[in-house]
Amino acid sequence: MIEIPLYGDDIFRPGSSLAVSLSCPTLLLDKKKCISNIRRMKARAEQNRVRFRPHFKTHQSGAIGEWFKEEGIKAITVSSVSMAGYFMSYGWEDITIAFPLNIHEIPVLNLFDPSVEIQVVVSSAETAGILTNRAARPFGVYIEIDTGYHRSGLQANEKAALQAVVNALSTNPLLTVCGFLSHFGNTYQARSKEEIRAIYQEGITRLNELTGYFSGDHPDLEISIGDTPGCSLMDDLEGIDEIRPGNFVLYDLMQQQTGSCSFNDIACAMACPVVEVHSDRNEAVIYGGAVHLSKDFLINPDQTRSYGRVSELAEQGWTEPYEGVYLSSLSQEHGIIHVPSPLMPLFYPGKWVAIIPVHSCLTVSCMREYRTLENERISAMGG
Amino acid sequence: MIEIPLYGDDIFRPGSSLAVSLSCPTLLLDKKKCISNIRRMKARAEQNRVRFRPHFKTHQSGAIGEWFKEEGIKAITVSSVSMAGYFMSYGWEDITIAFPLNIHEIPVLNLFDPSVEIQVVVSSAETAGILTNRAARPFGVYIEIDTGYHRSGLQANEKAALQAVVNALSTNPLLTVCGFLSHFGNTYQARSKEEIRAIYQEGITRLNELTGYFSGDHPDLEISIGDTPGCSLMDDLEGIDEIRPGNFVLYDLMQQQTGSCSFNDIACAMACPVVEVHSDRNEAVIYGGAVHLSKDFLINPDQTRSYGRVSELAEQGWTEPYEGVYLSSLSQEHGIIHVPSPLMPLFYPGKWVAIIPVHSCLTVSCMREYRTLENERISAMGG
Repeated sequence: MIEIPLYGDDIFRPGSSLAVSLSCPTLLLDKKKCISNIRRMKARAEQNRVRFRPHFKTHQSGAIGEWFKEEGIKAITVSSVSMAGYFMSYGWEDITIAFPLNIHEIPVLNLFDPSVEIQVVVSSAETAGILTNRAARPFGVYIEIDTGYHRSGLQANEKAALQAVVNALSTNPLLTVCGFLSHFGNTYQARSKEEIRAIYQEGITRLNELTGYFSGDHPDLEISIGDTPGCSLMDDLEGIDEIRPGNFVLYDLMQQQTGSCSFNDIACAMACPVVEVHSDRNEAVIYGGAVHLSKDFLINPDQTRSYGRVSELAEQGWTEPYEGVYLSSLSQEHGIIHVPSPLMPLFYPGKWVAIIPVHSCLTVSCMREYRTLENERISAMGG
Repeated sequence: MIEIPLYGDDIFRPGSSLAVSLSCPTLLLDKKKCISNIRRMKARAEQNRVRFRPHFKTHQSGAIGEWFKEEGIKAITVSSVSMAGYFMSYGWEDITIAFPLNIHEIPVLNLFDPSVEIQVVVSSAETAGILTNRAARPFGVYIEIDTGYHRSGLQANEKAALQAVVNALSTNPLLTVCGFLSHFGNTYQARSKEEIRAIYQEGITRLNELTGYFSGDHPDLEISIGDTPGCSLMDDLEGIDEIRPGNFVLYDLMQQQTGSCSFNDIACAMACPVVEVHSDRNEAVIYGGAVHLSKDFLINPDQTRSYGRVSELAEQGWTEPYEGVYLSSLSQEHGIIHVPSPLMPLFYPGKWVAIIPVHSCLTVSCMREYRTLENERISAMGG
């Protein structure tokens, strides 16, 4: 078990060194919860007979990738060319780069080992044309469709533009048009399962219209969608060939708020020491700031911001968060916790708290390293 | 000069490899502006006869630290014990860790090379007591005073608590009470030079009252303050012994908004490729997101959020930002730029833009590497 230093002289007990115990903000990972999250999502995919191509942009870790391999996963999604390279070095041989193709990276992509299947995403006739001219190894190509999130992708009703993209790509025998890819990111704004279901139905209907439209010349086009709220909550995934959720592996407060998970499913938390208490203003200061957690926030019912919830470290990890205790502001290394008066005595300089992150993907990007509850260090990309 | 790939076939011209040209989001550093910022702040300190102990939490780079050494700087400030260790490895021998002492790191601090002068910050009787009991090498100790920012520190009027801290520290001959340290962080909310001046006068008056109060037994207590807006804008720094500004080395949009700098002083910008354009909704999508820039934002006059301003890359770096063009949202790797209709034709897939960051300290923390305009790679801590 990880050694959690206690308050007072205990923290200096013999054998407690920087290498084996906590001394500064540390991203704790509950491996059991993480593996259970992987198994649950894989089972959902199997029940629905869709390919499970998990997005690795959340955990960003070669070691955690191995846990997916142990569950039989062979195909993955990443969000950048460099992330594809990182996971290729861990032996992954079927990778979709689910980000609008950056034409400046085509030369790098061309150098990727030809034995690795790489799928890229295009979302404009211009980019499709440049890829068609410049591809020098086989690529699968998904066309990104915007079904209402309005972040990236071609509109489903732009049939002429879509036809032009498909036609251009079809002229280069190294390119295989795989189908249509979409990220129903508007599910993150949804506040109920019904809203999420409506977003899904709408999106899937539009994508199926497209595969129907192109079925004459291209009968095998697939539909790939991905977002954790939908993949966690939809009762069935009819009309979809592949799902690419990513966040489910760790979950976070944002997912808990949408109802995609319970607190108990969240597989990471930041252990932070309290460095000051201010009972007069119901605050405690922790060593733990924007460089550790990122600055994503949720809005509390009273319209204040929450940069995280606060739990106790426990023998088996961490508890459910305290009611009414939250991270109210973050600067570079400082975090300010709001604490209702009755709970104030729980906080004192040296106390360790566990912060449940608002957005685990960004927290992992900040930290680039985890510590499991078994005290194993696990590095992420760049860490 | 750095090689900026152009649109079209030029980007694939011979000799353009990943190693020597841009292909993905890259934090550009204008070394000339950076050195000019260092010299200007050093000159201000000299004119005011205050010690200049620059905060290195902004640039976080051993190589940039050398530019300070070349200007004769010998004493620095950092925001964490690990950052102190990093800069010790670059030969710095006088370091103040301007963060409330985390008692769990006392064992690590005790192991620091005794030839290096380390100053720590305490802000509670409890922490002062633990440090007094556990310090096993010499430390200078500043007592942090909160003069109105209400983030961390003891209140200036808590004379009994301050006396207890001074008394406790004085019982350990390894500890030297250096004086009072404050961060006038409320200057960041100020909207005029007059407001910043008022915050300064108030803070300095309170700190001088304290040195007066303790002058009997401790005649040499110093006053150390630090924040870029005040140090950039105050006409004189009377009543202060030491300044610790950090952000001035790079500056950013937040500083430009407070009036601490002009656009032309900002020494870093993120080169990002456009990957999609959506004229119908006045948007372009760039490869450049929260993992590159961090999620700090400013509020535009129309109450929308700005995660950065948008400039052209130019032969000598980048231009002043376009009026009305700004980063309106960020996800993990995507950035959405709002573009007024008349400027829409400037944007196309493959175009490089330079994003002026809202908060350079956090952007550096995300990237951990710079590229100078002379195409030199400069790493920061952890990079």
